[in-house]
Amino acid sequence: MGSEVFVAGVGMTAFGRSNQSLAELMAQAATKAFFDAGVRGVDYVLIGVMNVEEFTGESNVAALIADRLGLAGVPSARVETASSTGSAVFESAFYAVASGYHRNVLVIAGEKMTHLTTARTTRILAEVIERNERIHGASMPALAAMITQKYQYEAGLSSERMQSILAKVAIKNHYNGSLNPYAQFRKLVSEADYFGSKWVSFPLRTYDCAPITDGAVALVLTSEKKLIRVSGLGHATDTLAVRHRDSLTSFRSTRLAAQQAYSMARVNPPDISLAEVHDAFTTFEIIGTEDLGFFPAKQGWKAVEGGITSIKGKLPINPSGGLKARGHPVGASGLAQIVDMVWQLRGEVGNSRQVPGARIGLTQNIGGLANNNLVTIIERTDRFRPIPVYWKSLFDPGNTEPLVTSDPVQSSMEGTLETFTILYATPEGIPSPLTLGLVRTKDGRMILARGRDGNFVIGQEVQVEKEGDLFYMRGPSEKPPKRE
Amino acid sequence: MGSEVFVAGVGMTAFGRSNQSLAELMAQAATKAFFDAGVRGVDYVLIGVMNVEEFTGESNVAALIADRLGLAGVPSARVETASSTGSAVFESAFYAVASGYHRNVLVIAGEKMTHLTTARTTRILAEVIERNERIHGASMPALAAMITQKYQYEAGLSSERMQSILAKVAIKNHYNGSLNPYAQFRKLVSEADYFGSKWVSFPLRTYDCAPITDGAVALVLTSEKKLIRVSGLGHATDTLAVRHRDSLTSFRSTRLAAQQAYSMARVNPPDISLAEVHDAFTTFEIIGTEDLGFFPAKQGWKAVEGGITSIKGKLPINPSGGLKARGHPVGASGLAQIVDMVWQLRGEVGNSRQVPGARIGLTQNIGGLANNNLVTIIERTDRFRPIPVYWKSLFDPGNTEPLVTSDPVQSSMEGTLETFTILYATPEGIPSPLTLGLVRTKDGRMILARGRDGNFVIGQEVQVEKEGDLFYMRGPSEKPPKRE
Repeated sequence: MGSEVFVAGVGMTAFGRSNQSLAELMAQAATKAFFDAGVRGVDYVLIGVMNVEEFTGESNVAALIADRLGLAGVPSARVETASSTGSAVFESAFYAVASGYHRNVLVIAGEKMTHLTTARTTRILAEVIERNERIHGASMPALAAMITQKYQYEAGLSSERMQSILAKVAIKNHYNGSLNPYAQFRKLVSEADYFGSKWVSFPLRTYDCAPITDGAVALVLTSEKKLIRVSGLGHATDTLAVRHRDSLTSFRSTRLAAQQAYSMARVNPPDISLAEVHDAFTTFEIIGTEDLGFFPAKQGWKAVEGGITSIKGKLPINPSGGLKARGHPVGASGLAQIVDMVWQLRGEVGNSRQVPGARIGLTQNIGGLANNNLVTIIERTDRFRPIPVYWKSLFDPGNTEPLVTSDPVQSSMEGTLETFTILYATPEGIPSPLTLGLVRTKDGRMILARGRDGNFVIGQEVQVEKEGDLFYMRGPSEKPPKRE
Repeated sequence: MGSEVFVAGVGMTAFGRSNQSLAELMAQAATKAFFDAGVRGVDYVLIGVMNVEEFTGESNVAALIADRLGLAGVPSARVETASSTGSAVFESAFYAVASGYHRNVLVIAGEKMTHLTTARTTRILAEVIERNERIHGASMPALAAMITQKYQYEAGLSSERMQSILAKVAIKNHYNGSLNPYAQFRKLVSEADYFGSKWVSFPLRTYDCAPITDGAVALVLTSEKKLIRVSGLGHATDTLAVRHRDSLTSFRSTRLAAQQAYSMARVNPPDISLAEVHDAFTTFEIIGTEDLGFFPAKQGWKAVEGGITSIKGKLPINPSGGLKARGHPVGASGLAQIVDMVWQLRGEVGNSRQVPGARIGLTQNIGGLANNNLVTIIERTDRFRPIPVYWKSLFDPGNTEPLVTSDPVQSSMEGTLETFTILYATPEGIPSPLTLGLVRTKDGRMILARGRDGNFVIGQEVQVEKEGDLFYMRGPSEKPPKRE
């Protein structure tokens, strides 16, 4: 392996709604990171931004930002992996330093989103979804809601208990965010606030979903020895379509990335002091803590109920407030997780959200609907390092191939409802509310379908019909609509 | 430095207008590269595409392509630097292998453009241009045309001679393309064809500009020893705005990138057997050969007239046909240059465009209007390598800082016309034709202005007025328009 890689300096803008341009936000974060690092220059600039073209109408962003920083001449490139861009650009910078060809690499990640309407932003963000699922009207919250319903079903929880668990995740992260001066939301959220918030896509409410945010983050990686070392990196993709996966309630991309990162860092899950876990939706934080090996499958919710993941708990999760409360400028979030972890490990947080004695930190970042995930482990270099012991892997490869992944061509067929949601905040051009369900057909295919009127229950038999590119499902009690 | 890096295999689709999707084109190129490399798997996939969101309406392209290739699970990221994306993604893959963390990295670059109208494509491509220059109506051909006029002026050439030189570049590259089965244009172009073609932006005609193209290219880099080794990489940015540069007729980004690549490869310009030079516009090929140190400044045109850059000449330039004849799928072109160079160095071209005995090849790729350029050097590992000798650098740093880079705030001022063009193929929403000029004001600022009616000559005094965000210029013979 090449050179060791260290973090020389970090910087972040306040997250939230900003009147500054993306270039201004990035310049502000970079200036802070330069100041913190105490370096005079860098030999490579890597920019992470998810969808600068459609959000801002500018392309050629790598040259634009280098020029804006007064670094015209220095090589610059943009890296992108949808909502895990912040971690992916960090990974690219790691390789550039580890290769020995670069000494100091400036990494900047950011996104400018709040100037567009929510419907338009939802439409742009939905471009990450596999085409067939997208044209049915599936948005990110709709897919996350279906995953939530399936998790509740598999974990054997009542609807009331599931919602109380999700509320606890939201309340915890908003509490942490209230202590973070960089967070978009700094108000405490009560149970009453949570249950009073609107449905986005049943059973997810506004307080289950990360907000739309402007913000930028910067970090300087170096080959020179510093307090914080990058010790583990993992990265894995999954099928673009959610319906092509073997499990809806565990993300293989997180499991694979975690396995690589633990192996490279030579640590096990119990060695991790604290973690930032991609909580674009509250359910994803729970699934993340299971996929990372912190808790057994379908038992992560117990850690939430038991307060284990609270800031004073045994394993603090999202002490920054997470994407939920700090905000989610899509291309920036992964790097924001890492920068906040640097502050935690250095002991620089400065108030009660500081986790005392933090030594090894892990961040997990999701790209798209969990099809391009990264896990990053950083650690203090001045502490005693445990001798790695054999750790019984939670990663049973098992049957990781879906049975049948192509969509069926028949015009009518029967199947079982695997999960469903009622989407209230529909993408541009689709009337609200919209029922969406994942149906396992008799021949083993999984399809996404729009629901006709009717009450749907997981496990129930449904009838599916194809009309043009779209599938529609009907429950057993419902009669076929009259044709005119 | 880390591991040495070799090319294991390459593949390319035919370039031109295609009915296949971007994913299909990329899969086709990747399959060929896998077959050529003889590898069973790769541990990292890097995707180069310039503007997939606006051209195709899809984002999350790294996960999409990995899934399409049956590689769900393998880490994947997208790299982008505008029109030099193909080289930048190659550079990222180089670092990943050189770092020792990856053994076989699949690089795929492509673009799907021809399904949109030319005006819409021109509008999307113009997003690379600095905002102030863009809102005046400057397109890429308009800026290239102004650079051409200035080159002619500085080289002391008549308009007729300049056009005859540009014609020779176009005719040469179309001749080379006629021998390349992957090229978009395989017909010979005559002097009559050239002079019969339409003005795009005076003095550039259709045959001076690279076409709109669909296509994809793939390559596998490996740490295992193979015939072709990657020996030099260089990469540099420049100011986003053309008017902020110290020279219009030499690209500092190419000079800096070349310097790094020669230094890393420990070779000098005379050691290069052949080169692929970014000829998005015929003038850029001539400027490129000067900036790369092949010919002295403002003398590259002599090499064209003397046939030195022809396929049978002493230094063949663009034996593939270049962007001009092979076509220019913007995100793919840089990697296409490298893949064609691999075929040349392996001696696999198979017809009269094979350059005999080629040992060291160089490719130069321009991002945006020459503000993110890369130079790549690859070589055969089985040949005698010359002992590096001191080579008198052509790169005199000189005064590389522009005098004043901010735009003036006065509403009216005088200046000297540095260069101008008449743009016929205007971007969406701007009437044709449009006169554009670069004006050096009395206080040393350079501004881009739209021309009122009148005849403009380089070196002439002009009057500039500001209206809103736009500048307008008038020649001395012209009276101010009456205001109502």
